[in-house]
Amino acid sequence: MRLVPAVLLSPAILLLAAATPLEDPPMRGFTPESARIQREWEAKFKAIPDPARMREAMRRLSLRPHHLGSAYGKENAEWLAAQFSSYGWEARVERFDVLFPTPRIRVLELVAPTKFTARLEEPIVKEDPSTSQRAEQLPTYNAYSGEGDVTAPLVYVNYGVPADYEQLERRGISVKGAIVIARYGGSWRGIKPKVAYEHGAVGALIYSDPRDDGFAEGETYPNGPYRPKDGVQRGSVLDMPTYPGDPLTPGVGSSPGATRLDRKDAETIMKIPVLPISYADAQPLLAALTGPIAPPAWRGGLPITYRLGPGPAQVHLKLEFDWKQAPLYNVIATLKGSTYPDEWVIRGNHHDGWVNGAEDPISGMVAELEEARALGELVKQGWRPKRTIVYAAWDGEEPSLLGSTEWVEEHMSDMRSKGVFYLNSDGNGRGFLYAGGSHSLERFVTEAANEVIDPESNVSVAQRARAAATIAGNTEARDRKDLRLDALGSGSDFTPFLQHAGVPTLNIGFGGEDGGGIYHSIYDTFAWYTRFSDSSFVYGRALAQLAGTMVMRVANADVLPEEFGNLTETTRGYLKEITTLRETTAKEVEELNRQLADGMFAAANDPRNPLQPPKAQATVPHVNFAPLQNATDSLARSADRFEKAYGGLASGPVNAAALAQVNALLRQTDQMLLIPEGLPKRAWYRHSLYAPGLYTGYGVKTMPGVREAIEQKNWQQADEQIGKLSAALMRESDLIARAARLLEQATNTRPIP
Amino acid sequence: MRLVPAVLLSPAILLLAAATPLEDPPMRGFTPESARIQREWEAKFKAIPDPARMREAMRRLSLRPHHLGSAYGKENAEWLAAQFSSYGWEARVERFDVLFPTPRIRVLELVAPTKFTARLEEPIVKEDPSTSQRAEQLPTYNAYSGEGDVTAPLVYVNYGVPADYEQLERRGISVKGAIVIARYGGSWRGIKPKVAYEHGAVGALIYSDPRDDGFAEGETYPNGPYRPKDGVQRGSVLDMPTYPGDPLTPGVGSSPGATRLDRKDAETIMKIPVLPISYADAQPLLAALTGPIAPPAWRGGLPITYRLGPGPAQVHLKLEFDWKQAPLYNVIATLKGSTYPDEWVIRGNHHDGWVNGAEDPISGMVAELEEARALGELVKQGWRPKRTIVYAAWDGEEPSLLGSTEWVEEHMSDMRSKGVFYLNSDGNGRGFLYAGGSHSLERFVTEAANEVIDPESNVSVAQRARAAATIAGNTEARDRKDLRLDALGSGSDFTPFLQHAGVPTLNIGFGGEDGGGIYHSIYDTFAWYTRFSDSSFVYGRALAQLAGTMVMRVANADVLPEEFGNLTETTRGYLKEITTLRETTAKEVEELNRQLADGMFAAANDPRNPLQPPKAQATVPHVNFAPLQNATDSLARSADRFEKAYGGLASGPVNAAALAQVNALLRQTDQMLLIPEGLPKRAWYRHSLYAPGLYTGYGVKTMPGVREAIEQKNWQQADEQIGKLSAALMRESDLIARAARLLEQATNTRPIP
Repeated sequence: MRLVPAVLLSPAILLLAAATPLEDPPMRGFTPESARIQREWEAKFKAIPDPARMREAMRRLSLRPHHLGSAYGKENAEWLAAQFSSYGWEARVERFDVLFPTPRIRVLELVAPTKFTARLEEPIVKEDPSTSQRAEQLPTYNAYSGEGDVTAPLVYVNYGVPADYEQLERRGISVKGAIVIARYGGSWRGIKPKVAYEHGAVGALIYSDPRDDGFAEGETYPNGPYRPKDGVQRGSVLDMPTYPGDPLTPGVGSSPGATRLDRKDAETIMKIPVLPISYADAQPLLAALTGPIAPPAWRGGLPITYRLGPGPAQVHLKLEFDWKQAPLYNVIATLKGSTYPDEWVIRGNHHDGWVNGAEDPISGMVAELEEARALGELVKQGWRPKRTIVYAAWDGEEPSLLGSTEWVEEHMSDMRSKGVFYLNSDGNGRGFLYAGGSHSLERFVTEAANEVIDPESNVSVAQRARAAATIAGNTEARDRKDLRLDALGSGSDFTPFLQHAGVPTLNIGFGGEDGGGIYHSIYDTFAWYTRFSDSSFVYGRALAQLAGTMVMRVANADVLPEEFGNLTETTRGYLKEITTLRETTAKEVEELNRQLADGMFAAANDPRNPLQPPKAQATVPHVNFAPLQNATDSLARSADRFEKAYGGLASGPVNAAALAQVNALLRQTDQMLLIPEGLPKRAWYRHSLYAPGLYTGYGVKTMPGVREAIEQKNWQQADEQIGKLSAALMRESDLIARAARLLEQATNTRPIP
Repeated sequence: MRLVPAVLLSPAILLLAAATPLEDPPMRGFTPESARIQREWEAKFKAIPDPARMREAMRRLSLRPHHLGSAYGKENAEWLAAQFSSYGWEARVERFDVLFPTPRIRVLELVAPTKFTARLEEPIVKEDPSTSQRAEQLPTYNAYSGEGDVTAPLVYVNYGVPADYEQLERRGISVKGAIVIARYGGSWRGIKPKVAYEHGAVGALIYSDPRDDGFAEGETYPNGPYRPKDGVQRGSVLDMPTYPGDPLTPGVGSSPGATRLDRKDAETIMKIPVLPISYADAQPLLAALTGPIAPPAWRGGLPITYRLGPGPAQVHLKLEFDWKQAPLYNVIATLKGSTYPDEWVIRGNHHDGWVNGAEDPISGMVAELEEARALGELVKQGWRPKRTIVYAAWDGEEPSLLGSTEWVEEHMSDMRSKGVFYLNSDGNGRGFLYAGGSHSLERFVTEAANEVIDPESNVSVAQRARAAATIAGNTEARDRKDLRLDALGSGSDFTPFLQHAGVPTLNIGFGGEDGGGIYHSIYDTFAWYTRFSDSSFVYGRALAQLAGTMVMRVANADVLPEEFGNLTETTRGYLKEITTLRETTAKEVEELNRQLADGMFAAANDPRNPLQPPKAQATVPHVNFAPLQNATDSLARSADRFEKAYGGLASGPVNAAALAQVNALLRQTDQMLLIPEGLPKRAWYRHSLYAPGLYTGYGVKTMPGVREAIEQKNWQQADEQIGKLSAALMRESDLIARAARLLEQATNTRPIP
């Protein structure tokens, strides 16, 4: 059908069209005829995912602890592979061998002024038999902690981020030679021991404050979903913002024959011992501190006066690990593409947990499994993906994105030449759609989310997300044409695809109504999940419907469904942020130096609670942002040209050979944004727009090279990084312009329908 | 000396003048010659106040409980009068008789689902003998509570302000027939039972959460300054924003022969029983609540999950009072003015406490006493105040500003014809100057505070206040010529002077480094104060120096030291606030109605934790602010004219008779700002710029008539109040213009020096 241009319609007819929508909603990347066929298959697809099957799969997969290297983890991988095979996929287990330390000795004691030995164990909950599998449970620990046997005074450091140490310094408190105790939150956990080490600490404890996910938030397990007093958050403290994956094989797959670093040369392994503890174990330690009262924002929910120390609490911390190589089992299943077998649409979720891991990661894994089953059903009914679909179940995500990272590193040339799209999920819950990733995919995400129904509200999951954000005060969420994607930092398996290989990437899931405090504990079980989260697996079904729709659309699109107006707008937004950051920094430094010169800190100082003045700082120079402004303007022009050319697709079939050339360019859009030599001090991370923060961890830094240079007041580096970022944006602009030209040709030479 | 106009000076000479200040700093209201003499006397004055004497006076005055009606309160009044007399003042005790209920029966029990009987008593601290005076201590209670014997389900209402009830309503929770439990904070305490009653509650409890002034803030008494678990904040719950003072004699002095209302007709007495409790007594009650989890901002520092109820906790509350008339003893001391005996410069601080009241109020009272002694010394050395100085020690401030209110009401015609200035203080502590009051006095306050040295930093108290505010991010505090006065709400004895009688008023003190949790408890003792607050009474001396300087300056000024540029700027600022308030309200209502129409609350609702949508609201109309804008412009012109005329004072002696006419006008500047018929529903409050908020209590509402009408979306009342406020500002403008004209004449007809 040929669309009548809107300008030819009278207002009355337009009104009628709005009132009675005869047209299907748009489908990015499809001609009208392709979209019609696609939508029929999608309707069949969406009817298939079955909550009862997800429930049963979760029960099966979370029945026993299934961490990396465990017997049940291997069983799960084999079972998953067998499931994929039974759905008609070609499935295999792909093994790597990775360094994975587990504890041999864990001792934590208060040795002065009183004695207390930390329990370091999560009690069995008799209502929940999963919690009783002691022999198979990993003890509470932080993977890739340093070893050590230290006795030292304790200092409370709040979240343990750099700003907290500035506060301590103003109070005359050093952590040199001390053991720090930090609370979870405020940054990814691995930042805390890293920053403590940089400040001279000899050990670190990380505890879960009840204000954050314990009794202050709600009833504790098993009475409610929140963290009981002895619950502990396990987790990795590998220096993931430097590089994730096996610490011994940076940049290459840790296949059996790979060259490995000596452990002492692996820069991502923590240098000091670090241990996560419960709030029951933390309370006696914190209560034994004297020294200044903690600032108001540092106080948690324990019924004590939070003080900073140092001491008189003296703590003995002893940690030793078994530094073994563990076998890692990725499950890789494929449906071969009929037209473009060498273009890969990849979908992944990890299968390893810290213990039974019902929520994290099985709730996402079971949705992925139902997608695979449903796609297998469609194939039996005659559907064919044009592009190859790869479904992955990653192992070893918890210790450090091991399965996905090693796989991407091992298959880097495939990623570059064949990677079209990576779609990630992880734990899933009840609530609102969240989505992050490559901003050229915002239109695509919006369209797919407009067509999946939220099980609680019966509006689309897109509409529900917009409603929640609007009510919370973000009216842009209502007024903007497309949903706004979050920028991705790290914390799940999307990282190697997006930030190392430059594959266009999304990460999606549901949550926000599923609060709890069982993250990375023995209480993350089937019993917990089915009582307190997506009990009837209707959000599991919604995730399967949404992810499957996305996979099917990318697999069969005529033109890869990217759009660059939103990418341009987002880039302009980041540029505005970093120019504002420089201005704000300049003003703050000027103001600080003026206050110091005027003696204001001395005048306001409280002699009974003295605060040393902050240090004077060098004046902030002006920075040449013009290259970035020019590059962004160029990107805007290319995006406009592409969008005009894309409009031709609405007129029906186009020249397939020309389209193939367009697509060959479009799959490189994130590759163009890579900086070949990577980010300063962490060459593994190459994306010029998105990276986990060096001092935030999972938290994203957008335009990371420039932004972190400004934050660190390294002006030479800021200049260099502006050059590299501008070059990346110019490459992107050129690629889009070329794609636009080819797309113009493809529609100008269209075959007669 | 005649000043050379600055324009005639070369830049080099100006620079020299700045480098070597030959001139004394300016002194508002004084000719250069008068200022020279004044400054000599002030120097003598400032040398006199003696910390050791303040310490001894505090020991004496806080030795035993001295609340209204107590034996020791009467002794204190007599002792204070004797002290004033011994300093050479004419002193007397002025008695009133006021309604002052004290408890006969106090019962608070949890009767279901478990049993618990509240302790309702503060334990003796053996290190502090003052705490052991059981026979003389008032029990823990709220004065002017209703009586009752009720058993009802409990509901937690956070601070118990109107916005909290909106949150409860959205969760489907009503307090009709319930007993509410609110925490202290977020508003003045009397608001909590008033709002609870308006929503149908039958009783109210108010507890001190440890997050606010208990262990979360620091060590508890006697280990540290904060509130111990059984500590209770006593206090009045009279509906003070309607009118303060004796509830039976609104608007007139409660002298023995005054006509009294029936108690049942006294609208300021609470209608339901209300009792303050400790956090030890509150915890079992709160822990027995079920129902929805309290929103994050509602959670305090107790180690429990805060829930809303209602019930299953059932509470029995029984209160009966002895509704006796108590004798009230104000101490009034005067130094007669040599030139203008019928112009009164009044200085006050209350002398009654809730128990031993070392901090509140004795720390301020002992400074006032030293001022009086020092002024007496000056008189012996030959100094004479031109105007009459009245030093007052008020009784019955704690129950409801009784002493000051009854005195002002009794002497209303004197206030109108003779009141030149009222200077108030109350409890004093260690830290930073705070000052609030009539904005025509900002220049005056700044000049006085520039000449008192802060004992900790050795810069002026003005400079220290500026430094602390600047560091906290308020750079205006540094850059503005004058200190910015806070607007006064209520909470101390300034209220009847400023808001009922229209006497130009200030309230000053020091604090901010003296945190603690002994307010209105038996732990507010000499031992506590000398350990944790202004231990060496150096801030007591600073207060005496500053207050005494202010009193001496107003007493002997050639022209009353008012300045109207700052008043104009402040008025413009308030006007901007209320116009913005209307705009913001209009936008919020529009947005809310749109969200409701779009079904967004339904779409975002969590079925397991349902929230009812807010109610749709009527569209906010535009409001005619033009009369206020015109009045403010007129005020600006008058202020400019006055300031030009005031400049003539620098040229030396002026016509004294003309000046007396100027001063007769200037003492009426706050009277012009009164609205004769008072504020809506509370005619006692007449000031058009400052009032305690109807729903904030002590917290000020500026331009209260207009602002509260907008807040309550009463648009007709907003129009009416704009008319009244504009008329008041026009009266003020006219008065200032007349004063300017007379001042021009006074300087044009100056005598030959």
